[in-house]
Formats: sequence, C-alpha cells, structure tokens
Amino acid sequence: MDNADLSAVLLTTEADIAYFNGFQTPFWQSPTRPWFLIIPGNGKPIAVIPEIGAACMARGWVDDIRTWPSPHPTDDGVSLLSAALHEICSGGGRIGLPRGSETHLRMPFADFESLRDKLPGAEFTDATALLRKLRMVKSPREIAKIAHVCVLVSDAFEAAPRLFAAGQTDIEAFRAFKIEYLQRGVDDVSYLVGGAGQGGYDDIISPPAGRKLQAGDVLILDTGCVFDGYFCDFDRNFAISHADDKACRAYDTVYRATEAGLDAARPGATCAELFHAMQRVLDTGGALGNDVGRMGHGLGSQLMEPPSHAPFDETILQPGMVITLEPGMTFAPNRNMVHEENIVIREGGPELLTRRAAPELPVIG
Amino acid sequence: MDNADLSAVLLTTEADIAYFNGFQTPFWQSPTRPWFLIIPGNGKPIAVIPEIGAACMARGWVDDIRTWPSPHPTDDGVSLLSAALHEICSGGGRIGLPRGSETHLRMPFADFESLRDKLPGAEFTDATALLRKLRMVKSPREIAKIAHVCVLVSDAFEAAPRLFAAGQTDIEAFRAFKIEYLQRGVDDVSYLVGGAGQGGYDDIISPPAGRKLQAGDVLILDTGCVFDGYFCDFDRNFAISHADDKACRAYDTVYRATEAGLDAARPGATCAELFHAMQRVLDTGGALGNDVGRMGHGLGSQLMEPPSHAPFDETILQPGMVITLEPGMTFAPNRNMVHEENIVIREGGPELLTRRAAPELPVIG
Repeated sequence: MDNADLSAVLLTTEADIAYFNGFQTPFWQSPTRPWFLIIPGNGKPIAVIPEIGAACMARGWVDDIRTWPSPHPTDDGVSLLSAALHEICSGGGRIGLPRGSETHLRMPFADFESLRDKLPGAEFTDATALLRKLRMVKSPREIAKIAHVCVLVSDAFEAAPRLFAAGQTDIEAFRAFKIEYLQRGVDDVSYLVGGAGQGGYDDIISPPAGRKLQAGDVLILDTGCVFDGYFCDFDRNFAISHADDKACRAYDTVYRATEAGLDAARPGATCAELFHAMQRVLDTGGALGNDVGRMGHGLGSQLMEPPSHAPFDETILQPGMVITLEPGMTFAPNRNMVHEENIVIREGGPELLTRRAAPELPVIG
Repeated sequence: MDNADLSAVLLTTEADIAYFNGFQTPFWQSPTRPWFLIIPGNGKPIAVIPEIGAACMARGWVDDIRTWPSPHPTDDGVSLLSAALHEICSGGGRIGLPRGSETHLRMPFADFESLRDKLPGAEFTDATALLRKLRMVKSPREIAKIAHVCVLVSDAFEAAPRLFAAGQTDIEAFRAFKIEYLQRGVDDVSYLVGGAGQGGYDDIISPPAGRKLQAGDVLILDTGCVFDGYFCDFDRNFAISHADDKACRAYDTVYRATEAGLDAARPGATCAELFHAMQRVLDTGGALGNDVGRMGHGLGSQLMEPPSHAPFDETILQPGMVITLEPGMTFAPNRNMVHEENIVIREGGPELLTRRAAPELPVIG
C-alpha cells in the first residue's frame, strides 16, 4: 500500500472481505445489504456492516466493527462508511478499490456516488493489481483446505459407475451426485454443471433440464465444491454404456494436453506459456476451436480467480499458486471435450491436488 | 419504459437477466466474466455475453445473442456492448440501469467508465423503481415454483426429530439436513444458516462451526432452497431435549406476531403497516430489540427481494406478491427468537406457502 501511495483500501465483496478477516456467511446471497471492510495503510481494519452481521463477524479477528440498522431507505451505511474513511484519510488521500478485470463494486452505484460526494478531497483509485498479487499465492492453510476438498470430490467421482446410468434424467443424476459429495464431507456443492449428448456435449455451463441419459452419450460433470470457504474446480467425463471412437480420440488428445500442462507448470513459466503448451497438443489433435476463452485459471475462495492461462496473461507462476489446468476443444460441430485438474505450484514443479483423470474415457452405466 | 423516457434498460446481474430471458446457470459464481442484457424500448432484447455461454443462453427465447471471447485483457465486451447500445440509442438517449437500493452493477467499474466514454451522448439513469415494480408481482408460474419448494422444505423440517440430536455437531446437523432437502427434490440448498445456544441463539446468519448440540439448546435453521430458479426462505426453531421457559414464552410471542402479520397481510395494506402489526405483539411480549432491521421481505428468484416490512416502506401489498413474514426479537441479552413464513397475497388475503410452524416450541432429540 505504501508503494501504491494508498491511505486505505475499501473492499465490498464476499471473497475480498473473507480474505482479510475470515468472515464467512451464506448471507452474501442476499442482495439487500452492502458490507464494507476498510484496510488502512496504518492501523487496524475497520468493518462497516449491517447490524445483523455483528455477532457473526465478531467471531473473526477484526475488532473494530461499526454497524447500522440495515436496510435503511436513505442512508444504507454510506455516512458511517464515509466517517470511517474520513478518520483515516482526513478527507484527502488515495483510497484503493478493485475496479479492474474480474472485479465489481458490490454496493448500489448511487451510494458509491454519494460516498464520493462526501469525500471530495479523496481520490478513488485502482487496487486490483495489489489484491491480485496478495491473493494469488496461497498460504499452507489455504492450500490444505483446497487439497482436502479435491480429495473428497475425487473420491466422489469414483462412485460414478454406481450413480449414473442410461435412462436416468440429468436432474436425477445431478441430485444423486450432490448427495454423494455431501455424504463424503464437503460443506457445500456450490457449483455443479454439466452436459451430455450423443458422442459429445455442446455446452458445459448448463444446469440439468430433464433429458434422459442414453447409451452412447458422453457426460461431463464439472463441480466446485466448498470446504471451509475454499473451492475445488474440476470435471470428469464418462461414456454411457459405450464410447464413440471420435470421443475417445478427443479424450486422449485433451488428456495429453493436460500432461503437457503438467510438464510446463513450473515456477518461472508464464500462464501464456502454459496455454501454448496445451494448445499445441490440441492443435495437433485436430481442435476446431474452444469457446472457454482460456485453459485454466486460479482457484481459492472463489471458484475462479486470476490468473488466466491465455495468450495475453504473462503472470509468472510462483510456488504456492493454486491453479486449474483446463484444456478443451471442439472436436466436431457442437461436440466439445474439456478436462480439468487442480494443482499447486511447488519449487520442484506442480503437485496434483485432484486424483488424475483416467487415461481413457471411462465407460459406465 | 415510455413513461420513464428510456431508450433501453441495461442489465448485468443474474436475477435481472434471468427474469427477462430465463437464463439459468450456476456459472454466475465465477466473477471472471461480465454478462449483459439490453431491453430496448422498441424491438427485441439483445444479449451481449461471453462465448462460453452462447449454447446455454440459446435455450431461452432471446435470439439476438452477441458473443466475444472472454476473458479479454483489454476489452471484455465493452466495445460489443457499446455498439449494441449505439444501434438502439444512436449515441444519445436515456439508458436505465439499476443504481438504487438492493442493486449493484456486476461489471468492472473501470469498464462501466469506458462504456460511458464510448457513449458520450447517452445519459445513464436509474431504472431501479421500474424493475422493482415489474418483478415484485409474481406470475402464476413463478408462484407455483415457490409454492413447490416451500412444500418440499416444509416436509424436510418435519424430519427434524430424526435428524438432530444432542451430541451431534452443528456441521453434522447441517449436512444431514442438506441431504434431506436434496432427497426430497430441491435442486439446490443455496442457503442454510442457523444457530444454537443454551436457552437461545445470538446469531442467525452464521455457518456451522463445529459446536456440539446440547440438551437445553434452542436451535434455529433458516434456509433458502431452490427449485427451477426460485427460492423459499423460512426458518424453524427446535429445543434440544428440553425447552427453557423463557424461550417458550419468546416462541409464543413471535408465533403470535406472525399471526398478527397474517391478519394484516391483505391487498391494500402497506409493508409499514405489516411491520407495525407484528411489532405491537413483540413489544407487548417484552422485545428488547431486533437486529434484522425489518420483519420480512419479498421473495422470488432471489433469496431476498423488495419490499421490506419496515417502518419506512410504504409499498402497497397487491395480489401476486410473494413475501416472507419474519418477526423476531431479542428476548434476553444475546438471545434471539426469529420465526419466518412465506405467503402469497391473494385478493381475499394471504395464502400460506409454507406449512405453518408448530404453535409451541417443538422439543426434539
């Protein structure tokens, strides 16, 4: 913050606030109330939050918790927040907030304008890069949580032959899988998407719609389960009853692209290099394209975090970064194959947190 | 939109976009990519979205879907979005977006500034009231979805005596309950919070922390489960092994406050009147306060929606509104009692969507 000449950083989102004070609550799903955490350049953090959260936040280590009765029709925390910022900045100073890629300001836009009006001497500037840098390298405790949920979900995927079969609707398949995860000890199945279709799927972000699994389908399930506030994010592919040759070849290509990613994921390599290492294998294997826009990303208290394995991202891999490797390709019109593994970068190279996918497309049901 | 002299409305959040085109995907949990839907004053809606979502969105009824490869390092949809808005507004016009209470702009703040720079003749104005008014009264199909999930979760709460017992940790209790919900047919257990403590609880928004349930505890579980994109939001209280007199009296008071809310929840009444009807019962019953800030709210594709049952909210109840009644009070230091039911306003009065809580504090385990 000194280097960036910041008097304070203002945070408004679940992941940023949890990162600094461990505050965890599903209550973030309610859009009604804004929450604020101020990290001053000097001194202790100040939480400015709705009264309903005081007892919950007091369980964390931030002790300066200021509350207002929310929802409030005309001043939903703005005066309290501006007073706290005024104490720190004396009406001037530079206040950092995340304004760049992959961020948003979780407060009413009109309230942000009021806040600016109340602090005419202050300059609101971008703190995206600072927060990215801090959060991108994980602590051993953060890594342990992600590793734990990766093991639970890897175990659950091994139960697939028991859970999925031709004739079952995708809604039933998803439900069975969510129950399996919970029984194995994840806290929440926050994210489960997938697709299935004859010889391949066209879409990997849809919820189930009631279609029955059929012999010859390729089924993908992609999940972000949560343990103690941290996510895994990986997928597995299965052929129902029998596997199509084209799909098997695509599976093999994408499997080998992941291997190339694992070889390249060493400290000092860039995310762009990681992308190209995987893309070369896919190109040789006849990839027609990829609508995901990248081949993996950071992972932590959010399902997706920076960096991006993409040609534009020159982020240098460092020990402690937790990332996904997610090569994918369109191998025929409306037919995609996407693999995903989760790894942590270590001094000597990558350490797999997920149990590696089977080397050949598994046939089940 | 004509009345508000709007050329277009620009939407960026999951709930607003789903409302207009039925687009459902858990992918919203990824903060990486922005998504946009433009509702023109004349003509059909235009979706401006990341490539990864094209197949999923094409399942809905919007057919003008424009995509870009996202994430993009320097132009994450802003040029495509501004070109689409330019077509509609010819560089001028008033573009509405939700800027008021309970809203936020889900795109990088810097990108919104770029968008404004690209459309110097346009005025970005507030569309909060317009969207509120549209979304607040539910269609029969919306009501049917909420009613269905309320029945499933009411059934699950009846299984409480089988699921919860002294000696079990709150983590185990929550997990057992999530599995129960899924087995009964909810799509997702998006929201489950609760608290337990000797003779009462101090906090209703925390996730479980590993504490064991004990005889003499009062346990509250408050859940928002989802069916086909729509939420329930209600709670139930249980005494573990035996019930404390004070807690029983508080339960009775809050139960009667809900009855008063049910009596008052008729077309033509205001949310403020609803609040006062419940507050009078709580005051008489010795309420020391209430840190929730209101006594219920709207409910739909979000866990919480406008209006608020609070002294400041003069919204008039209309047939088709789905709301919660959520009276609560602090009845001793750090001891709260909160009840919640979900209702739909009908011409003749309220219709309960939840199965009414037991009139006396249930003792289980």
